[in-house]
Amino acid sequence: MSKENEKKGQKMWGGRFATLPSDALQAINASIGIDQKMWREDIDGSLAHSNMLAKTGVISNEDRDAIHSGLKKITHKIENNEFDFSVELEDIHLNIEARLTEDIGEAGKRLHTGRSRNDQVANDFKLWTRRALTSTIEQLRMLQKTLVNRAETEVQTIMPGFTHLQTAQPVSLGHHLLAYVEMLARDIKRLENAHENAGECVLGSSALAGTPYPIDREMTAKELGFNGPNANSMDGVGSRDFALEALAAISIACVNLSRLADEIVLWTSAQFGFARLSDDWSTGSSIMPQKRNPDAAELIRAKAARIGSNYQALLMILKALPLTYSKDLQEDKSLTFGAFEDFWLCITSTIGMMEKITFKRDNMRKAAALGYSTATDLADWLVRTHQIPFREAHHIVGAVVKYAEDNNIGELCDMPLQAMQQIDKRINQDAINLLSVEASVNSRVSYGGTTPKNVLAQVQKWKEKLANV
Amino acid sequence: MSKENEKKGQKMWGGRFATLPSDALQAINASIGIDQKMWREDIDGSLAHSNMLAKTGVISNEDRDAIHSGLKKITHKIENNEFDFSVELEDIHLNIEARLTEDIGEAGKRLHTGRSRNDQVANDFKLWTRRALTSTIEQLRMLQKTLVNRAETEVQTIMPGFTHLQTAQPVSLGHHLLAYVEMLARDIKRLENAHENAGECVLGSSALAGTPYPIDREMTAKELGFNGPNANSMDGVGSRDFALEALAAISIACVNLSRLADEIVLWTSAQFGFARLSDDWSTGSSIMPQKRNPDAAELIRAKAARIGSNYQALLMILKALPLTYSKDLQEDKSLTFGAFEDFWLCITSTIGMMEKITFKRDNMRKAAALGYSTATDLADWLVRTHQIPFREAHHIVGAVVKYAEDNNIGELCDMPLQAMQQIDKRINQDAINLLSVEASVNSRVSYGGTTPKNVLAQVQKWKEKLANV
Amino acid sequence: MSKENEKKGQKMWGGRFATLPSDALQAINASIGIDQKMWREDIDGSLAHSNMLAKTGVISNEDRDAIHSGLKKITHKIENNEFDFSVELEDIHLNIEARLTEDIGEAGKRLHTGRSRNDQVANDFKLWTRRALTSTIEQLRMLQKTLVNRAETEVQTIMPGFTHLQTAQPVSLGHHLLAYVEMLARDIKRLENAHENAGECVLGSSALAGTPYPIDREMTAKELGFNGPNANSMDGVGSRDFALEALAAISIACVNLSRLADEIVLWTSAQFGFARLSDDWSTGSSIMPQKRNPDAAELIRAKAARIGSNYQALLMILKALPLTYSKDLQEDKSLTFGAFEDFWLCITSTIGMMEKITFKRDNMRKAAALGYSTATDLADWLVRTHQIPFREAHHIVGAVVKYAEDNNIGELCDMPLQAMQQIDKRINQDAINLLSVEASVNSRVSYGGTTPKNVLAQVQKWKEKLANV
Amino acid sequence: MSKENEKKGQKMWGGRFATLPSDALQAINASIGIDQKMWREDIDGSLAHSNMLAKTGVISNEDRDAIHSGLKKITHKIENNEFDFSVELEDIHLNIEARLTEDIGEAGKRLHTGRSRNDQVANDFKLWTRRALTSTIEQLRMLQKTLVNRAETEVQTIMPGFTHLQTAQPVSLGHHLLAYVEMLARDIKRLENAHENAGECVLGSSALAGTPYPIDREMTAKELGFNGPNANSMDGVGSRDFALEALAAISIACVNLSRLADEIVLWTSAQFGFARLSDDWSTGSSIMPQKRNPDAAELIRAKAARIGSNYQALLMILKALPLTYSKDLQEDKSLTFGAFEDFWLCITSTIGMMEKITFKRDNMRKAAALGYSTATDLADWLVRTHQIPFREAHHIVGAVVKYAEDNNIGELCDMPLQAMQQIDKRINQDAINLLSVEASVNSRVSYGGTTPKNVLAQVQKWKEKLANV
Repeated sequence: MSKENEKKGQKMWGGRFATLPSDALQAINASIGIDQKMWREDIDGSLAHSNMLAKTGVISNEDRDAIHSGLKKITHKIENNEFDFSVELEDIHLNIEARLTEDIGEAGKRLHTGRSRNDQVANDFKLWTRRALTSTIEQLRMLQKTLVNRAETEVQTIMPGFTHLQTAQPVSLGHHLLAYVEMLARDIKRLENAHENAGECVLGSSALAGTPYPIDREMTAKELGFNGPNANSMDGVGSRDFALEALAAISIACVNLSRLADEIVLWTSAQFGFARLSDDWSTGSSIMPQKRNPDAAELIRAKAARIGSNYQALLMILKALPLTYSKDLQEDKSLTFGAFEDFWLCITSTIGMMEKITFKRDNMRKAAALGYSTATDLADWLVRTHQIPFREAHHIVGAVVKYAEDNNIGELCDMPLQAMQQIDKRINQDAINLLSVEASVNSRVSYGGTTPKNVLAQVQKWKEKLANV
Repeated sequence: MSKENEKKGQKMWGGRFATLPSDALQAINASIGIDQKMWREDIDGSLAHSNMLAKTGVISNEDRDAIHSGLKKITHKIENNEFDFSVELEDIHLNIEARLTEDIGEAGKRLHTGRSRNDQVANDFKLWTRRALTSTIEQLRMLQKTLVNRAETEVQTIMPGFTHLQTAQPVSLGHHLLAYVEMLARDIKRLENAHENAGECVLGSSALAGTPYPIDREMTAKELGFNGPNANSMDGVGSRDFALEALAAISIACVNLSRLADEIVLWTSAQFGFARLSDDWSTGSSIMPQKRNPDAAELIRAKAARIGSNYQALLMILKALPLTYSKDLQEDKSLTFGAFEDFWLCITSTIGMMEKITFKRDNMRKAAALGYSTATDLADWLVRTHQIPFREAHHIVGAVVKYAEDNNIGELCDMPLQAMQQIDKRINQDAINLLSVEASVNSRVSYGGTTPKNVLAQVQKWKEKLANV
Repeated sequence: MSKENEKKGQKMWGGRFATLPSDALQAINASIGIDQKMWREDIDGSLAHSNMLAKTGVISNEDRDAIHSGLKKITHKIENNEFDFSVELEDIHLNIEARLTEDIGEAGKRLHTGRSRNDQVANDFKLWTRRALTSTIEQLRMLQKTLVNRAETEVQTIMPGFTHLQTAQPVSLGHHLLAYVEMLARDIKRLENAHENAGECVLGSSALAGTPYPIDREMTAKELGFNGPNANSMDGVGSRDFALEALAAISIACVNLSRLADEIVLWTSAQFGFARLSDDWSTGSSIMPQKRNPDAAELIRAKAARIGSNYQALLMILKALPLTYSKDLQEDKSLTFGAFEDFWLCITSTIGMMEKITFKRDNMRKAAALGYSTATDLADWLVRTHQIPFREAHHIVGAVVKYAEDNNIGELCDMPLQAMQQIDKRINQDAINLLSVEASVNSRVSYGGTTPKNVLAQVQKWKEKLANV
Repeated sequence: MSKENEKKGQKMWGGRFATLPSDALQAINASIGIDQKMWREDIDGSLAHSNMLAKTGVISNEDRDAIHSGLKKITHKIENNEFDFSVELEDIHLNIEARLTEDIGEAGKRLHTGRSRNDQVANDFKLWTRRALTSTIEQLRMLQKTLVNRAETEVQTIMPGFTHLQTAQPVSLGHHLLAYVEMLARDIKRLENAHENAGECVLGSSALAGTPYPIDREMTAKELGFNGPNANSMDGVGSRDFALEALAAISIACVNLSRLADEIVLWTSAQFGFARLSDDWSTGSSIMPQKRNPDAAELIRAKAARIGSNYQALLMILKALPLTYSKDLQEDKSLTFGAFEDFWLCITSTIGMMEKITFKRDNMRKAAALGYSTATDLADWLVRTHQIPFREAHHIVGAVVKYAEDNNIGELCDMPLQAMQQIDKRINQDAINLLSVEASVNSRVSYGGTTPKNVLAQVQKWKEKLANV
């Protein structure tokens, strides 16, 4: 047998072709470099499939046992980096099946009964995605826990709350950190929904039309942790919305992380001076010895862009693709694997930074008073005490702020009462007393507001929810 | 009062500024052209907010009544296109509030107590999005119903099932159509999840820190149909992941519609000849009188691109944006409104096309037999009957196909038994009988497979599920 | 004639259809709301086309004259908002042609000879895009001029140069502003290239195959300002890469503007305090009277996201679209028109903000000294004066910075000589003298470096280049 | 020296930090897995830089010689896969410099004088991108040549020209293929422009402010093949629009390839039957032995999506990033490298497929006559011969087509004269003779039209232009 023929023998679908695929086709076509990441899912799928084939009498128990012991041997080899992945065998499915057949003979060739690469790849990929989602949820809960812990010690820390990056109103740093815990809670919900919405097992859809073999799809589905089999074989092999949904969920979550990352970059700048990253989360400069760069935070911003564009790429791939499977779908895996791996780095890095970041409380407190951040409190006092319509109060306070600006008065609570009264006689010392940042923060008692009592209650709520993380 | 001063008076936040915003700022800043689409949500929010303010004693019952009757008058005007929206009043919130104050005086100025434009706009927008999601779900169910009805009459219609746009195996057209019903079911699930995940009412978060007024946020939330108030005011005014989630859900759904649209384009081409659109869903050509163009289907493909890129745009806007509200967020609305409106056109058009499309059953049946689409059936027979390993059977059938190709034999069931037996002696007439497209379709009896009995059962399942649509 | 038949008559391609397009099809299909923006290009195209048809004898001179006077009348009406655009006539081409025929009779029906809507729409759109590019280039040059003017007065202003948003080295503010002038120069180059690369006139490609009429395409092309006719009719009607190139060019340019916008947001924050927007480029808050929000800058960031996603949408529309024209292409116009209009707002706003922004030079100067920004200068001195390898010098300076940090020394030039010499004996007073921010900036004399002399030379260069703007 | 300290020593910027970066930071931060692809550019940059430093007297000639021989040794090692890249040394720059210093001692430490990693990485990356552009242009010219060669032999092959995927008018297959040659010509122009627009050498911009060393930037620029040095150091280290422009150019080009790829998928389907891929560009199925899948064409469609989204990702990374360098930019390389590598696979695959694809001329010819594709010719005849306004002729022909459809007449040239004359008496045998597809194609004589004479002239034009490829 010539070497070329040997090669042809390895191509499992090659029986009818006169020549081999060209090298360039092989290069664009081979996926083994990517899809070997789901080797465990491929083997789990084959274990479940062969169990079911034996149970339903399609293969013998002896064949099933041979397949199982063969697959376990392969598992062992892969786990120990002893498995030799071959580009000529294109993908993870053929790599494993070829090795299995080499090892156990005929029985190996019976494994593919009642299934096709089309449902096999969809099944492996869906299984990988579901497991990735589960792992991601756990990691995000750890991040929530980290943030809650930091919030707990910063309930009383006062910082400026920003809108438009302008000082707006003073808030509790703990409150600010808990905002992210809430965002992450919705992110986690989206990941859970994506997991649930990917609950139908595709295996048994076969090439696209189902199969004549008397297979038991409930059995396979349950063994692989799915809710049950999918109801339409064409949908099964041709749909990838489960991957789109997972990518959408992590792209939104990573954008949320990127907002915190951007704040880390801002807060550790000399201008803000709100925080300092620990040494092991800072990097230096090859030319400027004084630099402490927040590289990880910057990279999280960039990774958010990448993950988002991976979603976009898969959406663009699927757009206007007729049913059922087309090779275009092969790119789904590198987009999805890469996005999850990037996202995991982002979560770990955020946990690492936030665990050890030092908050410069004095700087935050000073900044909280800048920009007349308690001006609204004066307006609210005018409304409450003198029943002045809010819009009018807003105009009065505008004049107060202008006076303070023009006279270089730092905080409104330092403005002379007389000056205030020249603007509006109704303003008295009680009002001025409310204009310290502490008084302001303490006053925001509505549910969801920043008063420390509220914040502490939220911390307790989250500690209970996350007790088992 | 000079005209300029009048203008300044209208700018509700303008008290402190020496000059008016320049025209260019006004042009880039004004959102009234867009956000007037959520006028009803703005009014509903104000009705609920004033109800609550009166109940908690922040405003008097008289004020509340004046506000309510004023808002009803405005509602009436807008519904009758008699409301004059002003660009100088920037947005829907100021337009309505200014008119209200003009109409009812002082009480109108009290409406804004305990809230801010920041929570107001987030609340209006979230309410709009939730209502849009609900409407979209209803429309998608109508599309499912349309497809199920067409599937029911096409259970027995045989067409080629494609992979790689190559004929793969014959399937039931009903089965093909039901694949989309399954896809839409997951799309609907995503929309429902987006609705649920947007269940927290933002109103009462105020500017970003909560408010000192003794407001009852549970009350407002319930009146507006939310599950309850959100727990963190900063999260409330600064987050838009609910819009991202809605956009992700409809971008995935529209990509699913674009796949059907692409099939309509293919099927109505002369080359496929599988279907003909009704006259009222075809358009002609200004120069070629013979054309019947599937414009709506083509536009659905294009709209899928637009909706997907709207998601991408909002993701890009939110990336690395520090807390809480920044003006960047203003673009969220035109992206979201536009995406939903485009998507509704796509759903309506798909329903319209699919209700009246004529399937050319003969052409489909003929095409189903092309390309030796029953080859797998022969392989399966060899496996089942002679216990030949699948991989070996695959090679035997490869040789059969090559013979048929070389000898211009149209369908495998027309190949002489003798010729088959020259390739493998075990093949007999029983096998050949299985190789008609009808036999092939009937044989796919596994759950989810294309055998008409299965397809009919699925049709029944869906008719029951959709009975109330 | 019944009203329905009248409608049918209006549909210029409707001769063969039994029923009218459904309302939904009309809604998704009609483009008049969008493409009326290129009414002038449509009329210019028809003027040139009819000129050519008369010159080549395809129509009579009388017909040409009737067409011209008819089109001029329509121009007048549109310019005076007296033209009634009709949705039933779908698009700008049919609206104008129908009116023309109504006005001038038979001659109007001869206008469409030798062309098709396919080449007509491509031609109008290309012409619009070329004109938009030209206008954009002019606007960007005005922005360059604005920046150069501001740079000129800020040559001597010292500010911190940032990497990673950490203070890196002091720079001239004029140098910083000129960085954007350089970026804009490349942006302009891209726009010019896009204009040139769209230089082939499509008109005369007809439906897709050319035409049997003896038309003179050179003549039409020249009259419309193109370089000449395109060489392949199928390419002409089916390609939109000229729009993609234009969108890519402005999306890159707008991202450059968004970087400046982000700096405006940062610099006008209380924490940076580097700049203050003029009143007419600031907006206030409905609840916080003290706010001065940089709305326009924030919106520029958001618009950059939108423009970028418009490119993405058109790319996605064109992906995998077989030749030649498909209706999907109709969406090209709203994407392109919207992107240009948004971008023009961004340019105008940037000019407006930058013309009047006040730089707080003292704050910048103080910030320039933070973070030991002259540390590299010490390293460079060690290398130059003592031939210490740079990497070693870097380590020495690292120790110096650590000492300064630990001892709360604000600037390196304030560190005692003795303390320096304890770290490395070779450091002397000459070295310390180099460590002021002024000395540092003055020392960067390499071409492109920030020394004021360089910056002034660059200002001169640009003033000459932009003398005629 | 402890192992930890050794590690610290290797971190070239690590002098001031108490602890090492955590593993997670190292994982997210390390770029060596990606940027080693530009090892040659890094070495070329260092060769030029050290040449210049010696010439200007900043380092000695001995140092320069040591550096050069050290770098050549490293080149040799990398070329022979003997270089051990270290993750702890983060990136390609530190890997090479550390090895150099290890090999040649002190001189190695002097190499970094007058430059920084900031300008070094920008320079390497820009150099890589320029070289990639040049290579891509060459490959695209080869593809043009392939298409021109195939067009030459298919000038007389008649196929249907499509709009809306509906048969529109018959065209020459050679004409169809040349449409892509024209599209590629613009693609190449964009790549050339991107190359030119990236013509300024960044090296010598140093960290961001320039350098005090008396460097000669013209010299370095010329040696590296740039047009000259950039004029603003901050622009130099902080801008990546050259990469965006390159990515835009190849994303547009790949979308053009994806259109051809989609046509390959369509044309090789059983329904079109227009073409057959050679065996070495087809793949089979693991379950369906009869399949011939156009995998490479499908993957090109998918790659177009990926490359487009890489552009989008980099745009999103750069959006709103303040000057100058931020670590976010590190992701620019994997996005750009990956896009070019994917695109090269697409070009090679397209060349491979198109060189050997078999066109089924009979099927094309038959299809060209379907759908009354010559209807316009009848309309044109009516206009030309009887001066009937085009719009009227269009209506007459609409009636002719309806008659043909209702009476199952395949081609208009087969319709009885009498039947035609019942619709319009002016139609005669001359007209009918024009309605064969051959007559139709021959009639399209306008410049750019599909008449074989035109097509052949275009083939000649392109053969001359591509003579040297």
